[in-house]
Amino acid sequence: MENTEMIGEDAQRPRVGLVLGDPAGIGAELAAKLLADAATPALAAVTVIGDARQLAAGARIAKVPLPAVDLDDRANADPAATPLGRVSAEGGRAALNNFRHALAQARDGALDAIVFTPFNKQALRLAGNPYLDEIHFAADVLGYTGQCSEFNILGNIWNARVTSHIPFKDILKHITTANVLNALMLTDKTMRATGFANPRIALAALNPHAGDGGTFGTEEIEILQPALVRAKLQGICADGPFPADTVFMRARAGQFDAVLTLFHDQGQIAIKALAFEQGVTLLGGMPVPLCTPAHGTAYDIAGKGIANIDASKRAFAIACSMGSRCRLV
Amino acid sequence: MENTEMIGEDAQRPRVGLVLGDPAGIGAELAAKLLADAATPALAAVTVIGDARQLAAGARIAKVPLPAVDLDDRANADPAATPLGRVSAEGGRAALNNFRHALAQARDGALDAIVFTPFNKQALRLAGNPYLDEIHFAADVLGYTGQCSEFNILGNIWNARVTSHIPFKDILKHITTANVLNALMLTDKTMRATGFANPRIALAALNPHAGDGGTFGTEEIEILQPALVRAKLQGICADGPFPADTVFMRARAGQFDAVLTLFHDQGQIAIKALAFEQGVTLLGGMPVPLCTPAHGTAYDIAGKGIANIDASKRAFAIACSMGSRCRLV
Repeated sequence: MENTEMIGEDAQRPRVGLVLGDPAGIGAELAAKLLADAATPALAAVTVIGDARQLAAGARIAKVPLPAVDLDDRANADPAATPLGRVSAEGGRAALNNFRHALAQARDGALDAIVFTPFNKQALRLAGNPYLDEIHFAADVLGYTGQCSEFNILGNIWNARVTSHIPFKDILKHITTANVLNALMLTDKTMRATGFANPRIALAALNPHAGDGGTFGTEEIEILQPALVRAKLQGICADGPFPADTVFMRARAGQFDAVLTLFHDQGQIAIKALAFEQGVTLLGGMPVPLCTPAHGTAYDIAGKGIANIDASKRAFAIACSMGSRCRLV
Repeated sequence: MENTEMIGEDAQRPRVGLVLGDPAGIGAELAAKLLADAATPALAAVTVIGDARQLAAGARIAKVPLPAVDLDDRANADPAATPLGRVSAEGGRAALNNFRHALAQARDGALDAIVFTPFNKQALRLAGNPYLDEIHFAADVLGYTGQCSEFNILGNIWNARVTSHIPFKDILKHITTANVLNALMLTDKTMRATGFANPRIALAALNPHAGDGGTFGTEEIEILQPALVRAKLQGICADGPFPADTVFMRARAGQFDAVLTLFHDQGQIAIKALAFEQGVTLLGGMPVPLCTPAHGTAYDIAGKGIANIDASKRAFAIACSMGSRCRLV
């Protein structure tokens, strides 16, 4: 709703960088379809960051006209050298180069938000990328040292995590009252930045049946409850801890806007079971919102023109919403 | 298919005990609907174990005629004393009494399988039940000390666990090669007992992204892989370890018949997200198969006649299938 007021006022539209990810997947097709969508120019002033030949190939695959668009041609991914469906160091290098360039633009104030098409982790590794995930890479390029977190957004349900890409054996030592409270605060702050007036956050429990009153573990009583009490004192609408196997059902039934899970798979199992195709990943907490569809490069359908655009559209809409707010503050 | 050959030969039909669980929920309605189903008498010789008044009330709620059925009237749950929708010690006591009686009958060779309508854990506790779950209770009454495990069955997907109702902090020490191998063997054996010729079992990983080659933990390499190798040497069709957040999607796509998860919520999150209403719980490994719908007592719809019978029918079919095989061996 907020964005519609801005249509026509070019200075008010957020400046969104659309980064082309791995060139061997469905990324360029998704970018072309997104650019061809009638709603796109009204939402943002878009700059595509990637190889012009790759974008043109995407438009051919998508069978859409290549729209007149601001293009920062990186000339780094000749389709002949990065064939569809094949993982390559060249592809990984191009994706990283595009992403780094967009982040530098954002850091220097030239972009308000970034949307990127999927990366291929294996290609990134072949290209020598030493980072565990995109969020660490992005924070480093942005020179950002504060708290940040990956958010998964599925329809109206948000999912954030207290811990992410760490070994299972290390999870417990990171589940402290301070860390849970910080994650509740970051979730609240990030959701407010996309327009939630008072996001309702459910905290997932650690133990089966949420410990069942201490029978199967006491972390709910000793660690999670105190974090919830402190969050509430700060005006955050948080509740729980709820058994991890039903908390997403509560959210789906409309009781909550977000679920804060304690570790990677606790949320990912539910998100992927509920509807993997439609999810959006937001790298949140940083000075600039970074959004991408949650699905992967989909090498198996690359070039067929059948890639589903829903998650990319939603990622773009969230980036626009957050980008406008950041700008207008 | 196996069962159809036996129709008409009464001596060959399995003798199934249908235990009435918590009297304040939808249990009696489900039992009445199941008994009224035309397929039921062909599948088994059923004995209902519970209060005759409760069963009659269930038939009235279900709006089905009360079929002529073998009834072991326990006279322990007067509907006036155990009103619908209200948790009570009386209700818990009746359910436990019925279950204990059926287990004793099975132990003494008078029943081949048991199906029970849902229990209410709070009512069981009010009734002084000291057991953590039904499986420990059943093993004790049966005098069974061997390996046993809860299985969740959702459509064509089975889910078993290496650990169950234990604190999160204790999970890791139970994830040993021996325990995982035992669970793979029990899963294979139990599924063969229901008619799978060669069940395909997927093992879930412990760490995010299955450890990503050792980057996020090494248990996949050091513990899970060796268990899989040993299982395969025994002729078990096991594979993995697969990332826990996509392993159920593989099973749903038909790649596997079962997923062995390492802890309670790892499987329960997926099972409940995929379709909670239709699931069946099997307490497997014991001398007699014990089946129940995975859903609860549903106090909120008790008495309305709208309870969904699908999970109960499926629980009954699995009990009949396993009961016949056990008998004919």
